[in-house]
Amino acid sequence: MVVGGALYDELTTVMTSDHASVVSLNIFVALLCTCIIIGHLLEENRWINESITALLIGLCTGVFILFTTGGRSSHIMVFSEDLFFIYLLPPIIFNAGFQVKKKQFFRNFITIMLFGAIGTLISFCIISLGAMHFFQKLNIGSLKIGDYLAIGAIFSATDSVCTLQVLNQDETPLLYSLVFGEGVVNDATSVVLFKAIQNFDLSHIDLTTALHLIGNFLYLFIASTALGIFVGLLSAYIIKTLYFGKLIRHSTDREVALMILMAYLSYMLAELFSLSAILTVFFCGILMSHYTWHNVTESSRVTTKYTFATLSFIAEIFIFLYVGMDALDIEKWRFVSQSPKKSIGVSSLLLALILVGRAAFVFPLSFLSNLSKKSSSEKIEFKQQVTIWWAGLMRGAVSIALAYNQFTRLGHTKLREDAIMITSTITVVLFSTVVFGLMTKPLVRLLLPSSKNILSPPSSPKSLSVPLLGNGEDVVGVNGDTQRPSRLRMLLKIPSRGVHHYWRKFDNSFMRPVFGGRGFVPYVPGSPL
Amino acid sequence: MVVGGALYDELTTVMTSDHASVVSLNIFVALLCTCIIIGHLLEENRWINESITALLIGLCTGVFILFTTGGRSSHIMVFSEDLFFIYLLPPIIFNAGFQVKKKQFFRNFITIMLFGAIGTLISFCIISLGAMHFFQKLNIGSLKIGDYLAIGAIFSATDSVCTLQVLNQDETPLLYSLVFGEGVVNDATSVVLFKAIQNFDLSHIDLTTALHLIGNFLYLFIASTALGIFVGLLSAYIIKTLYFGKLIRHSTDREVALMILMAYLSYMLAELFSLSAILTVFFCGILMSHYTWHNVTESSRVTTKYTFATLSFIAEIFIFLYVGMDALDIEKWRFVSQSPKKSIGVSSLLLALILVGRAAFVFPLSFLSNLSKKSSSEKIEFKQQVTIWWAGLMRGAVSIALAYNQFTRLGHTKLREDAIMITSTITVVLFSTVVFGLMTKPLVRLLLPSSKNILSPPSSPKSLSVPLLGNGEDVVGVNGDTQRPSRLRMLLKIPSRGVHHYWRKFDNSFMRPVFGGRGFVPYVPGSPL
Repeated sequence: MVVGGALYDELTTVMTSDHASVVSLNIFVALLCTCIIIGHLLEENRWINESITALLIGLCTGVFILFTTGGRSSHIMVFSEDLFFIYLLPPIIFNAGFQVKKKQFFRNFITIMLFGAIGTLISFCIISLGAMHFFQKLNIGSLKIGDYLAIGAIFSATDSVCTLQVLNQDETPLLYSLVFGEGVVNDATSVVLFKAIQNFDLSHIDLTTALHLIGNFLYLFIASTALGIFVGLLSAYIIKTLYFGKLIRHSTDREVALMILMAYLSYMLAELFSLSAILTVFFCGILMSHYTWHNVTESSRVTTKYTFATLSFIAEIFIFLYVGMDALDIEKWRFVSQSPKKSIGVSSLLLALILVGRAAFVFPLSFLSNLSKKSSSEKIEFKQQVTIWWAGLMRGAVSIALAYNQFTRLGHTKLREDAIMITSTITVVLFSTVVFGLMTKPLVRLLLPSSKNILSPPSSPKSLSVPLLGNGEDVVGVNGDTQRPSRLRMLLKIPSRGVHHYWRKFDNSFMRPVFGGRGFVPYVPGSPL
Repeated sequence: MVVGGALYDELTTVMTSDHASVVSLNIFVALLCTCIIIGHLLEENRWINESITALLIGLCTGVFILFTTGGRSSHIMVFSEDLFFIYLLPPIIFNAGFQVKKKQFFRNFITIMLFGAIGTLISFCIISLGAMHFFQKLNIGSLKIGDYLAIGAIFSATDSVCTLQVLNQDETPLLYSLVFGEGVVNDATSVVLFKAIQNFDLSHIDLTTALHLIGNFLYLFIASTALGIFVGLLSAYIIKTLYFGKLIRHSTDREVALMILMAYLSYMLAELFSLSAILTVFFCGILMSHYTWHNVTESSRVTTKYTFATLSFIAEIFIFLYVGMDALDIEKWRFVSQSPKKSIGVSSLLLALILVGRAAFVFPLSFLSNLSKKSSSEKIEFKQQVTIWWAGLMRGAVSIALAYNQFTRLGHTKLREDAIMITSTITVVLFSTVVFGLMTKPLVRLLLPSSKNILSPPSSPKSLSVPLLGNGEDVVGVNGDTQRPSRLRMLLKIPSRGVHHYWRKFDNSFMRPVFGGRGFVPYVPGSPL
């Protein structure tokens, strides 16, 4: 449940219900419905996905508003960082954690960390240095050293939301967990980088500063994860102890409400402590699906599973619609229209730097990761590396939010170079989402035609009684025959098996008796288990 | 799904993510969780309910903040009409329409209309005249004629949310449908009254003005209902035609998202056209539960049922917590502390007027309603009349929102009499909710001890496959033996039976083939129907 910006004390004075806001809410909700219906009609289409539909509908609406208002305004609302970070992003990332295949994710944990931390840093350096080198030739105005570093951070922030749309967890589980996991860790790295740019004197980086930054990252990563785990376990403990299921009336409402509120609380607590809220809510989602979800009634399970997915779905469409509608911010484009060639140059250059920056870490780090794997089936093939490189190229609302933070003052641009940076960011986001996004589905089919059969059978829709979460574990039981080879492989691989084995043992003998979870659910009368 | 006030174009300049808002969101979400847990622990208690818990926790938090800030501030956010009317009220009223026992509601339609329209008018007149007469004696400052009329409207607006909390649909279905239905119609009347106060010259009311007002009410009632029915049918038609169920991936998300968004759209459209949004969203809920809900997959049905209930549940607790926390608005109480006796006098007087005003229409109108009923079992007994009178005495957030609208300018009070009116409204709301609310449960048990057995068997929680909505119809099938007498009675009563009979015929031969509904659902592969 998302509540209004009305919570801001200082805003209440301007907060009278005016006609304009009702009109824009109406248009927005109607457009969301349109996107869902059109997205459904285009489902069978192999190129397009819901994000691109929403982006294009948003763009068309922007053009329409631009014409009807005679060029004065192009949007019914201005992009707001708060709306994005406080209300739209949490449900998306929480749902990703809630529905992620946990086994797959933790098996590739080291690789994900490599990509997310070292990879983002490499990408950041290349984009920053590239921008520094080439922008001076383009003569786009006086950007400071901090601005170049910010450009590096803005364009090395991958878009987790887009990844969720273009890659399918069932069809390509390895790639999905790598690219999406990378995106989540990438956020922690971005937060550290951004704070570093704002607080440290980065004109002369020495060993102390570097160590400080690394320490900062480690603190942020560990503290955020710990907070997510703590809130997740707390929710499991509360629901297990209070035993909500025993009451007939309101029990499902209470369970669902508590899960939603505590998930949101984990995000907001992380924001409060200046941690990486994305990381926190992601781990909270994982913990909730592993423990809390098993402690509630059957109807709560079905409800939470689909409610979280629906909220995330609406938030995703909302973001793309929003970015599309906001792309035609006339104030910024007016500056740029005086020098269109320069703007195209900047955008192309940034796109090229993104391509190079990502290639510069995906291939070397995949090579490193492969060195540590003994069995050839666990190595990342070259074709998969290309897909990972390609699928992470999209830049989204996170980049736009960061760009607005760096290059606008209270939503407005005063300087020409700032306006160029904003419009270039929008161009890069639109281009990468539409063009790269459109080409990802066909690319995956071209490069990994048999991925469906090799990697994992798609989870077919079974009856409600089959728990649809934690598929990684279920599949072993349900499709035992197809999965047996991979199990055999695991038995041969001592180290990975070892960690998982000890975790299982610890989970069964200590965690589950305290926090509940599959097999440790109290008997609920009246609930068909 | 509710989106931030960030939608307001003019607000974006002040909309930077500041620390204070994150802190208040954290406190608020944590308090909501606390309310749910405490509400659960007190479930067995025969006096207290969730609203009162939330109200008291809110008050305590207010006191705590007052002390920690050294008396400077008592709230972490100021009461906002927008937050209440645009984000919190819609889910509550929609859910009420969605879960209402339709048969019971329509059977008492005439009585509900009598209570909601004529009753509110009577109550409004008595409170306005009473205030005019007694306030001059109390010498509380210069209130205009418009202010007295506003006081009448403010305190004749019953609180639908409270009714839902204190009466149980399963235990006392007749009373529930009467009191809650009255509350919904009451809203349409209040809107007309408020607009009349603001637009018409009410110092000399003649026949033309009166006819104008009646015409206005009829237009508002019919247009609002029609809009709700239209959006409800549209959602059913879209979901039936597009046949979302045929697709495996995302189909449930899409269905649930579309239902949530279209329900919200109906509310916002009514706001846009200055209709009674509460009436619209209520009828949209009824239509959606009758048609749309039967057109979706089994998992969507479970999800929507509990999601709507949960959203409504969270919004209810939110409102009471909010009212409780905002009750100690130090700015307003400072005025009042200079003349405490006067303030107590005003509050007591208002409470007395509410009691008298409600008694003045419940008993006469019940008498009228009984005249039209032939069978004694359908008449409203005296004990039931007392319960109806009592259960509708609570005043809630609607009254507070209206009082803020009338007596504050941008959230602040300049005049002493305005401050007294605000604090008196808060006192009346707190007192009526806590004291009247606390006594309703025991009163119902005292006056209607055997209500559980006489009126209807409580719907016991059965397996998921039994549709829990539209209970009125299900009960006939499931508990045929206990319900047969009432069916027999209906067969004897020609007029009522007639209407229902023709509606059934029309529904089956025309509406359901077009809009779906029970028995006209297309076969969904993979869904256990």
